Amino acid sequence: MDQITKDIVNNTIRIRPNNSYKGTYGKVGLIGGNQNFGGAIIMASSAAVHSGAGLVTTFTDKINLSSLHDHLPEAMFADYNDEETLKSLIPTFNVIVIGPGLGTDTKSLKILNKVFSLIQKNQIVVIDGSAITMIAKHKIKLPNAIKIFTPHQMEWQRLSDIKINNQNENQNMIKVKELNSIVVLKSHHTEVYNSDSVFQNPGGTPAQATGGMGDTLAGMIGGFVAQFNNKYNAVLSAVFMHSKIADELAKDQYVVLPSQIINQIPNFMKKYEKI
Amino acid sequence: MDQITKDIVNNTIRIRPNNSYKGTYGKVGLIGGNQNFGGAIIMASSAAVHSGAGLVTTFTDKINLSSLHDHLPEAMFADYNDEETLKSLIPTFNVIVIGPGLGTDTKSLKILNKVFSLIQKNQIVVIDGSAITMIAKHKIKLPNAIKIFTPHQMEWQRLSDIKINNQNENQNMIKVKELNSIVVLKSHHTEVYNSDSVFQNPGGTPAQATGGMGDTLAGMIGGFVAQFNNKYNAVLSAVFMHSKIADELAKDQYVVLPSQIINQIPNFMKKYEKI
Amino acid sequence: MDQITKDIVNNTIRIRPNNSYKGTYGKVGLIGGNQNFGGAIIMASSAAVHSGAGLVTTFTDKINLSSLHDHLPEAMFADYNDEETLKSLIPTFNVIVIGPGLGTDTKSLKILNKVFSLIQKNQIVVIDGSAITMIAKHKIKLPNAIKIFTPHQMEWQRLSDIKINNQNENQNMIKVKELNSIVVLKSHHTEVYNSDSVFQNPGGTPAQATGGMGDTLAGMIGGFVAQFNNKYNAVLSAVFMHSKIADELAKDQYVVLPSQIINQIPNFMKKYEKI
Amino acid sequence: MDQITKDIVNNTIRIRPNNSYKGTYGKVGLIGGNQNFGGAIIMASSAAVHSGAGLVTTFTDKINLSSLHDHLPEAMFADYNDEETLKSLIPTFNVIVIGPGLGTDTKSLKILNKVFSLIQKNQIVVIDGSAITMIAKHKIKLPNAIKIFTPHQMEWQRLSDIKINNQNENQNMIKVKELNSIVVLKSHHTEVYNSDSVFQNPGGTPAQATGGMGDTLAGMIGGFVAQFNNKYNAVLSAVFMHSKIADELAKDQYVVLPSQIINQIPNFMKKYEKI
Repeated sequence: MDQITKDIVNNTIRIRPNNSYKGTYGKVGLIGGNQNFGGAIIMASSAAVHSGAGLVTTFTDKINLSSLHDHLPEAMFADYNDEETLKSLIPTFNVIVIGPGLGTDTKSLKILNKVFSLIQKNQIVVIDGSAITMIAKHKIKLPNAIKIFTPHQMEWQRLSDIKINNQNENQNMIKVKELNSIVVLKSHHTEVYNSDSVFQNPGGTPAQATGGMGDTLAGMIGGFVAQFNNKYNAVLSAVFMHSKIADELAKDQYVVLPSQIINQIPNFMKKYEKI
Repeated sequence: MDQITKDIVNNTIRIRPNNSYKGTYGKVGLIGGNQNFGGAIIMASSAAVHSGAGLVTTFTDKINLSSLHDHLPEAMFADYNDEETLKSLIPTFNVIVIGPGLGTDTKSLKILNKVFSLIQKNQIVVIDGSAITMIAKHKIKLPNAIKIFTPHQMEWQRLSDIKINNQNENQNMIKVKELNSIVVLKSHHTEVYNSDSVFQNPGGTPAQATGGMGDTLAGMIGGFVAQFNNKYNAVLSAVFMHSKIADELAKDQYVVLPSQIINQIPNFMKKYEKI
Repeated sequence: MDQITKDIVNNTIRIRPNNSYKGTYGKVGLIGGNQNFGGAIIMASSAAVHSGAGLVTTFTDKINLSSLHDHLPEAMFADYNDEETLKSLIPTFNVIVIGPGLGTDTKSLKILNKVFSLIQKNQIVVIDGSAITMIAKHKIKLPNAIKIFTPHQMEWQRLSDIKINNQNENQNMIKVKELNSIVVLKSHHTEVYNSDSVFQNPGGTPAQATGGMGDTLAGMIGGFVAQFNNKYNAVLSAVFMHSKIADELAKDQYVVLPSQIINQIPNFMKKYEKI
Repeated sequence: MDQITKDIVNNTIRIRPNNSYKGTYGKVGLIGGNQNFGGAIIMASSAAVHSGAGLVTTFTDKINLSSLHDHLPEAMFADYNDEETLKSLIPTFNVIVIGPGLGTDTKSLKILNKVFSLIQKNQIVVIDGSAITMIAKHKIKLPNAIKIFTPHQMEWQRLSDIKINNQNENQNMIKVKELNSIVVLKSHHTEVYNSDSVFQNPGGTPAQATGGMGDTLAGMIGGFVAQFNNKYNAVLSAVFMHSKIADELAKDQYVVLPSQIINQIPNFMKKYEKI
């Protein structure tokens, strides 16, 4: 299994063309954050904004509107319970991130199904957290779009039917091909699969073993694929960068918080910008 | 087309007279932020406060009260749906900024019309974002006041009927004279028109191509024209400063967020203060 | 007129005794922040906390609860519309600060009257902003307590019936004696009166001429008088420190925000701690 | 009485194993924050997150949801008034912290009783603030679990029936054995008891005599016992670290705020990590 290298990242994070505008960097819609897990979608949205997505809209429960705007005035709000809003807005995004803090109850399931029914062929959809769990449990038909899954090992077991102990490159690859998707299998050294290759992330620290890290990564991936043409390399770069920042911060910190990683994204992307 | 120079800015940002008080630096009312775009008016208001406006009141939907006060306790709140409030307060401001996150639905339109009907001749009104779109669409009569428009190229097309590809100095100037206004035409190198001259902004970086930048600029312009006598030079200086800060931050950041620019305004204004 | 000196401040900010606890540093209740001016009472409360008050409770409209707790989790909340709460809590404070963002409508007036009726003889009450305006307008009887007024010049005109142009040491002193209070008359060089002396503040910068500065000073005064025995010197020290911080920050900033001053209070108090 | 030493702390804060995940570091549920004291449970929760707890859920009044998520998106929310939620979630935690800002009214009492009835034998419960007061007042039966009490001297008087003046090692130890608990008796030099030993905290500064310090300590203890095997040493280390951070910050600050201590936890834990 190859390692994600600094070179891949360097070749992905292009120098922004002078004559560009926010539309150049993609419209990202993030969907999640029920009445208990509002923080998750705030972190994912903030990661997308700090990664450089051009325009970010957060679809969440109305109860999270105040904390979203205060924490991240750069994001726009949409009510994920309002079907008309979903219908008119979902098709307008380049990238959809669904799952952070979405929950798994009937309301969550309804939203997931509705969003999937609206997704267009040319859209990219990042599928995270409880969205993966619901897909596995309810055998939900996947949309005909560019799909990126970000399961941790237990979620991958649910989705792939491969027990954690049996999760190895060969077994995983069979399922990845079947899914016809990019799969980010999160663990101590995260592995990133697409249909014909797999890369392992060299970094990662136990200092980042804390709630919200996955939400942050999902948002970063959303922001990266919105901007960079080679989607697989964009995902590899987001995974690399996420743990690179954590590794650096962990030199001085026993724990690294998601919010701290998010704040460092613009600086670290600059360091790895294509020369 | 002349370039905005450091000299213009230096001659605009006067040393504050010792015997002055908050009233000296103007009362600014900012109007916008519907139930989806509350972040926009928070950023615009914060930019006005950080630019040194004496007193800032934010007219927005009540749903945005909490995030506004938490993010920016320096700003006062007013409910933009309350006509009595609009009637009693609008005439008391030196500067009105209308548009950031206002939206374009019937409620937004009603507010815009109401505010325009209340604006007095000696007031300055900065017209941004969805306010421009509504003016173009509904042929709204402009108030008899000192007007500053801040369109991006597509909004300028709507307002001026000049297609983006045909937007050049001559064509634009004809429309600017007709509007009898200052027009800040936002693009990679923003151009600032008044009836007898036009300046181009030398700065600007693709790192700032992200949502909320326009809202931030509108708030800065509001803050600058509230304080400095020569209104055209105040606008030129706000445009220059906005991109100057972004250019500096972009040396270390791949993306520059509106909130980060806002925080730097007091320091950069000090650097460019008249000697 | 004497100047407030560094020595007065040095002799006031005592070294905290080792064997002390939060009760040693006073209970401060701050009352204000209606549905439009919530930020004012947040800033005042934050200034009291950062000045070292032992326990801070903020009495405000329920609509401000979220922004208060998020901005300043150190403060407790109480609903200022709830008479039972006022009745049981008001007598428990060492210091009451009333006025920041309280407003002047009938609801505000009712709260002011209620609070004044509950204040005990040994309590200190700092009377600021709209509370002063209402006292002047409605000839409200002052409570029999230790009173500190913090008017700007127009509020002093309302309270004292001395026109701004006629406000001089002699005229002011007559009224101060009549009020039997400490009066902080805010202007470019703020003057602090008590019944037998008056001091002028040497510092102050036009960079601090922005909304919220008075609220911040009122909260600092509340925090200082809660901790230091000589009440007049505590007020002099708060006034001195408030502008000292602004003067320092203004070396690098064109404007100084109240929130920025508040954050510096603990560091500046340390610099001026009694040796 | 022995002193807590740097060695105890060094031997407690283990180097995190590489092959670990957030589940390794414990699930912590914090319960408190009524409609007046929401800030208390926010500070306690933030302290737990910054101490490295793997997953943090905050059980509080719904009115505190916005400020919680905005201040600390890393924490999940649960409504402490919803008995079904308590029933399904309480047994899933490794550590329960109950008390910060919980209040002492009938609603608070009901929640305390409900939570205690749900606690399992192998769970750790940190009992703080108003929870202690209610236990003393209503003679509440303690759960059969690993119990840690964090009273200040007055709360200890209520719980132990030992008057503050009579609180000495021998008297306290009798009651501690009866409680079969760890007891953190907070004072200038905090003492930490378990059934066969007692340690005194060498640090602590009067600069930290301000509201919210106890809530912060309770949250830190929750975070530490969730991660480190020797529970008594984990408590000793949290107590040591809490005042160590305050002592360091107090070198430059006259007052130290709970929020400032919280932000420093990850860095200080790193400094004391086992070598």
